[in-house]
Amino acid sequence: MRITTVGLDADDTLWHNETIFRLTQDRMRDLLAEVADEPVFHSTLAAVEKRNLALYGYGVKGFTLSMIETAMELTGGDPPGRMIADILAAGREMLGHPVEPLPGVDDCLAELSEHYRLVLITKGDLLHQEQKLAASGLGDLFAAVEIVSEKDASTYDRVFARHGTGAAEAVMCGNSMRSDILPALEAGAWAAHVPYPLTWAHEMADAPVGHGRFVELSSISEFPAWVKSLS
Amino acid sequence: MRITTVGLDADDTLWHNETIFRLTQDRMRDLLAEVADEPVFHSTLAAVEKRNLALYGYGVKGFTLSMIETAMELTGGDPPGRMIADILAAGREMLGHPVEPLPGVDDCLAELSEHYRLVLITKGDLLHQEQKLAASGLGDLFAAVEIVSEKDASTYDRVFARHGTGAAEAVMCGNSMRSDILPALEAGAWAAHVPYPLTWAHEMADAPVGHGRFVELSSISEFPAWVKSLS
Repeated sequence: MRITTVGLDADDTLWHNETIFRLTQDRMRDLLAEVADEPVFHSTLAAVEKRNLALYGYGVKGFTLSMIETAMELTGGDPPGRMIADILAAGREMLGHPVEPLPGVDDCLAELSEHYRLVLITKGDLLHQEQKLAASGLGDLFAAVEIVSEKDASTYDRVFARHGTGAAEAVMCGNSMRSDILPALEAGAWAAHVPYPLTWAHEMADAPVGHGRFVELSSISEFPAWVKSLS
Repeated sequence: MRITTVGLDADDTLWHNETIFRLTQDRMRDLLAEVADEPVFHSTLAAVEKRNLALYGYGVKGFTLSMIETAMELTGGDPPGRMIADILAAGREMLGHPVEPLPGVDDCLAELSEHYRLVLITKGDLLHQEQKLAASGLGDLFAAVEIVSEKDASTYDRVFARHGTGAAEAVMCGNSMRSDILPALEAGAWAAHVPYPLTWAHEMADAPVGHGRFVELSSISEFPAWVKSLS
């Protein structure tokens, strides 16, 4: 078996993301505590986000708009101005949040980049993902960056054909079973799941059972050895 | 001279865009008429957009957030809830707006696609630009689509290297002197400017004078003949 190309997810695989979304949500929950208890706040926000996903896609700007919409719903259509100001400020802070690679990421990528073509494959706001990659200091390790609107089997098929030698000779690594693992396996690639402590409900899915090209790893530090073992 | 690749801008080159932004702005101006006269509204919105550009990038979601921020500023930080609701609705309408190719676009692309590799090169929200291309019915005519966060000379250099035979054998066509023409010329490509009746202030720039690889066309219908004349 020859492996030429390694795809890596970005958010919650290379750096924190969901944690920052959750902190912002907690802040909004506290702001809205007078008008909605915690379960109502979370279910309303989840419903608004789900409804908007097809129109807004992934990323902080759509999330900020969904938070404003949630505040509208929970205040009977008339949120105080300071609440809107707080949400706008929270969105801006998320976009400007410092980016620090997760433990083990630097060494993992440095090692892999000596032997394989590394491709970053991520969803989210185009500009923001580019900014995060630049801020992470990891940009030079990647041969290519693909910021995509959706991650399905055809996405991996196309990306691994464009930047490598096809999905059959590629490995994907990420924290989302739904977006990183299952569609990459479906495209014919290998896939390593490295869970992140938090997962957005939308990204949840069951692990494949007894799949020959799949592995579950407890840390990204174990990833290079697994890729090497495939050859 | 051999030309292998033709790059095309999307918004206001293949379909209306600025007109839709202006209509939404007019709606907001009317909503805010009680608190701000027209020049104040426009200068405030322009200042907010400019301030946010580096963080939000191009596209409808960032514009919607900037409109909310403008409403905040002009109402002393306390806009009525219905105003926020109107802005959110306007943003959603812009994202769902039907896409119709401008006159002459269908024929132009059909003719060019027989002889050249067509590449769509556009800024804006990733998902929204993909949706507009799909809705336009023009998607199949393009060999590649590049949605980018900024259009500078290095962008054209990279895109024409990736999808063609380099900028020296490529032509770019678009309505923005600043984003489509000047950086493409700088990268070594040929460039045809097809003005759109409206131009966002941010996209304005002077035309190059006496440049051998530049042409100004009054309609995209004249573009195929010009490209052919280069060979």
